[in-house]
Amino acid sequence: MPLNPADDRLASQLPEGVLRPVEDRYLDEPRGRYLGQGGLVAAPRSVEEVAAVVRACAAARVAIVPRGGGTGLVGGSVMPEGPAPLILSLERMARIRDVRPDEDVLVAEAGMTLAAVQDAARAAGRMFPLALASQGTAQLGGVLGANAGGTAVLRWGNARALCLGIEAVLPDGSILRDLKRLRKDNTGYDLRDLLIGAEGTLGIITAASLRMAPVPAGLATAMLAVPGPAEALALLALAQGRFAGCVTAFELISGVGLDFLAEVLPAIRQPLPGAPWSVLLELSLPQGLAPDAALEGLLEEAMAAGLVTDGALARSGAQAAEFWSLREHLPEANRRIGSVSSHDISLPLSEIPRFLDDAGAMLAAMGDMRINCFGHLGDGNLHYNVFPARGRRREDYDDRRAAIQEAVHQMVVDRAGSFSAEHGVGRLKTADLARWGDPARLAAMRAIKAALDPLGIMNPGAVLA
Amino acid sequence: MPLNPADDRLASQLPEGVLRPVEDRYLDEPRGRYLGQGGLVAAPRSVEEVAAVVRACAAARVAIVPRGGGTGLVGGSVMPEGPAPLILSLERMARIRDVRPDEDVLVAEAGMTLAAVQDAARAAGRMFPLALASQGTAQLGGVLGANAGGTAVLRWGNARALCLGIEAVLPDGSILRDLKRLRKDNTGYDLRDLLIGAEGTLGIITAASLRMAPVPAGLATAMLAVPGPAEALALLALAQGRFAGCVTAFELISGVGLDFLAEVLPAIRQPLPGAPWSVLLELSLPQGLAPDAALEGLLEEAMAAGLVTDGALARSGAQAAEFWSLREHLPEANRRIGSVSSHDISLPLSEIPRFLDDAGAMLAAMGDMRINCFGHLGDGNLHYNVFPARGRRREDYDDRRAAIQEAVHQMVVDRAGSFSAEHGVGRLKTADLARWGDPARLAAMRAIKAALDPLGIMNPGAVLA
Repeated sequence: MPLNPADDRLASQLPEGVLRPVEDRYLDEPRGRYLGQGGLVAAPRSVEEVAAVVRACAAARVAIVPRGGGTGLVGGSVMPEGPAPLILSLERMARIRDVRPDEDVLVAEAGMTLAAVQDAARAAGRMFPLALASQGTAQLGGVLGANAGGTAVLRWGNARALCLGIEAVLPDGSILRDLKRLRKDNTGYDLRDLLIGAEGTLGIITAASLRMAPVPAGLATAMLAVPGPAEALALLALAQGRFAGCVTAFELISGVGLDFLAEVLPAIRQPLPGAPWSVLLELSLPQGLAPDAALEGLLEEAMAAGLVTDGALARSGAQAAEFWSLREHLPEANRRIGSVSSHDISLPLSEIPRFLDDAGAMLAAMGDMRINCFGHLGDGNLHYNVFPARGRRREDYDDRRAAIQEAVHQMVVDRAGSFSAEHGVGRLKTADLARWGDPARLAAMRAIKAALDPLGIMNPGAVLA
Repeated sequence: MPLNPADDRLASQLPEGVLRPVEDRYLDEPRGRYLGQGGLVAAPRSVEEVAAVVRACAAARVAIVPRGGGTGLVGGSVMPEGPAPLILSLERMARIRDVRPDEDVLVAEAGMTLAAVQDAARAAGRMFPLALASQGTAQLGGVLGANAGGTAVLRWGNARALCLGIEAVLPDGSILRDLKRLRKDNTGYDLRDLLIGAEGTLGIITAASLRMAPVPAGLATAMLAVPGPAEALALLALAQGRFAGCVTAFELISGVGLDFLAEVLPAIRQPLPGAPWSVLLELSLPQGLAPDAALEGLLEEAMAAGLVTDGALARSGAQAAEFWSLREHLPEANRRIGSVSSHDISLPLSEIPRFLDDAGAMLAAMGDMRINCFGHLGDGNLHYNVFPARGRRREDYDDRRAAIQEAVHQMVVDRAGSFSAEHGVGRLKTADLARWGDPARLAAMRAIKAALDPLGIMNPGAVLA
């Protein structure tokens, strides 16, 4: 069934006052790969208005593109082709509906930024553990739609693991009311987790009940220089053995990343300049175990085993924030340098050292490039980004970009890894999914999409092309 | 489309040697509520043979009832009505396929018992955290199919949270090969979590890659007498505040439960006999924090606040095992006493004390009964079981059983709780789901069922009647 472009007739069917002017902020995306088109922008104020918008679009056969903070990196929230869609923004649904510190539960609307959700938890004496570089802009709806990851997944899991229940509007305009505050509820199919990570192709999440967590009694943060990724993994195992359940972050940073920071963001202080590889480690500790003592014991053992060559322990919250700031500025430095190609990959932990050797050798054979590999080593999730050699321009690599991407992804898939660890499929990786996805899984996905969205109005072209 | 009974023609279409004699162990269930019927029993040896069985059943329009260890409590694995089905047992698919201590991952076939999976993890120097009273018999396939819970959910989540990937046969006989060993993989819809908890109605899980975890450096176990459920919840909050991430179990035990043990299992030693309510607390502690010191600090603060009136701290592994044995024997004592009605419910934590007051008053008005309420308080999951008054027989309550069940479930639902926290829907609670489930959620479940299993051959009558 062909979709119609969003038009005046549709506009007259929408709830009063939901239309917004079509502005650039609804059409762009961070890497500038896609430019969206918007026939109409609707910003409903309630789940009932969202349902009315969806019903009107279904009746008019107009596509809906859900739009959160617009920080997604795979083109999931822009529709550059096809009939002009209606862009659905939940920016006016940004309230906290309920905060229950005694249950460690918070109910938030999907238009809140992730940072605002964190703030609400903090105001209740708790924390919301999900943390991302883009948290000041990213909205909860997008965070859930993409099943976002970030720096605390090692301990807390992705967005999916922190969500207890959702309210959503399904493609037929019905309202799924399932904002439960329960840790356990085995009453039928897991629709919550199906909508989470579906990138807006199966419905619109309008609110969610979220797990909060107690603020840990102590926090230990350190930057540690390691000889290489294999030693970093051995250090991770050592830390998990000593502090099982308390290792909340384990981020890998390459020497190239430090070079980039020094080059384009020289104001960022580097505690271990020149380290070929380093790790940002964070432990959340119970009462009775002093952070310094915990770190020093670990460090002593790790140095004796040759896993760590140098280290800087945060002696204050300010110093810990400084270490995290270094980590969080890596993407910004990358943007300023300008990548040839970037890859959000995950691998089984034991495959990582060999993958890095083999991928480095393969890319060296394809030309003169720099590789900045960093990311969430504890989750096996690396941001493996390829840059021009010093003094060369991105454009010099235009003819090789596609080949580089394909070669890296093929090498990841051959090692039982994923070509999209945390960013999702969006529109950027639909061909990768069609090529490398398990055929039975793809067929089941298509059957579910057809069953829940028979008109194909929900974010068409995303996930399943 | 009507289903045919399993018959000789179907038998001739199955892979050679998969048929087993139809025995009682394929037809019964622990509470004796249902008696299954089996036209044929098939026990395939490989996923390919499972696929062949499913294809043959699809061609013959014969229903398939998947059968694990048969420990489910809601009739999910017995089909008492309709044309005789084929019973599919994975008892011959019980191998460990892969153990990766360096990745904390284990790949196991669905016919393994949960205890055997735990043993395999232990042999690799790790642990598989899921723990249930029936773990010696329950099979992994059933554990995943039911999204089983148990005593370690507070820290580790349900079965779903411990599964990284699955291999499964879908209703059309296609094989979903998605045994990933990855912590992060955002490449499309979450079919894994959809099949987990679907109780065999959307496909047959044949193997799974599972998360292992490091063995904690220290374990602290205590039985603590508390004045009541409200104080138990305050104690939980206190423990979480001191030891966030380290509280691995928090089980509530009522005085009635202790009475039952004394009555029918007097050999079970009771460290705190006569306590009106008690809590079994377990902390998994990092190196550097002595279990005794941790518990004593907590206890001191809890006693000062009036949350704990007495306590017994396990001074050895044997003593901890003794505390756990008491907890694990509660269901056995209940069976010997013989319940009028049992309820596997969950509630928002803050609702629990009032619910217990109100439900107790309501039942007192319905007759003379004893209530044994115990369970996973940390998850808000209570086994709220109703028994005859002393000296009365179960049969004396036959006329009130349905009314009691309905009244308890209605009270749970009115307080935003669940009428099935961890046991699932099976055949026992299909009417509850149809009555209390969110209509949009039910409609979406039916659409998904019809899309993936258009012939309706997968465990018909379970979950969705």
